[in-house]
Amino acid sequence: MLPYNLDHVAIAVRDLDEAIARFGAQYGVTPLHREVVAEQGVEEAMLPVGGSFVQLLQPLSPDTPVGRFVEKRGEGLHHIAFAVPDIEGALAHLAQQGARLIDETPRIGGRGARIAFVHPKELAGTLIELVEPAP
Amino acid sequence: MLPYNLDHVAIAVRDLDEAIARFGAQYGVTPLHREVVAEQGVEEAMLPVGGSFVQLLQPLSPDTPVGRFVEKRGEGLHHIAFAVPDIEGALAHLAQQGARLIDETPRIGGRGARIAFVHPKELAGTLIELVEPAP
Repeated sequence: MLPYNLDHVAIAVRDLDEAIARFGAQYGVTPLHREVVAEQGVEEAMLPVGGSFVQLLQPLSPDTPVGRFVEKRGEGLHHIAFAVPDIEGALAHLAQQGARLIDETPRIGGRGARIAFVHPKELAGTLIELVEPAP
Repeated sequence: MLPYNLDHVAIAVRDLDEAIARFGAQYGVTPLHREVVAEQGVEEAMLPVGGSFVQLLQPLSPDTPVGRFVEKRGEGLHHIAFAVPDIEGALAHLAQQGARLIDETPRIGGRGARIAFVHPKELAGTLIELVEPAP
């Protein structure tokens, strides 16, 4: 089960507009896509860098996973996402390896992709998202 | 000043061999390169994922920047690196924007690349490395 790309690196921010402005001023990078993903309690912006994205995540309220992360740890790197061709196959492989999954079956994330999260205890404290992009 | 690639995402780990073994078992990803970078106090492994790398960093001792990070926050996401064609130009642009630089001039990192770090206060608590790969 080889991920074919590093789909994105996600950064939790308090103020999406300000973070987008700073990325633009400092690195010349601008959002290709912006979306409220209510189910995950975030507004997200996708900033293309080479073949990957920097994803900026602003919590919709403090009482969301990203909101609690920001309260506890401050703004900063939140998770990384691997693009996989077959998300069910990837989840089955991880389960077979004994990995603890946050999502045992895929759900729908931003850009209509099918996504699932793997618990950070499984790999060096790092929250990993699997993404099977929409066709 | 546009970065042309997300060069790598770095994860601080306590045990490089164990982290490499887990990445291999869970995601089928294996290191392309492994190196002690004494100046930065780390042993690093570069695991290719699409056009980017996951970089695993094990501190050489607790009294190093990555060692202190692991003591304070545990294992986890440490920094992201943007590949730039002209690192002096990128640093000059950031300085002009008033950004606080950890390295005002480039130094030599892994794989002989010229690198410089930008302070995490500049962008949503995220430590950013600029990388101008060796020719």
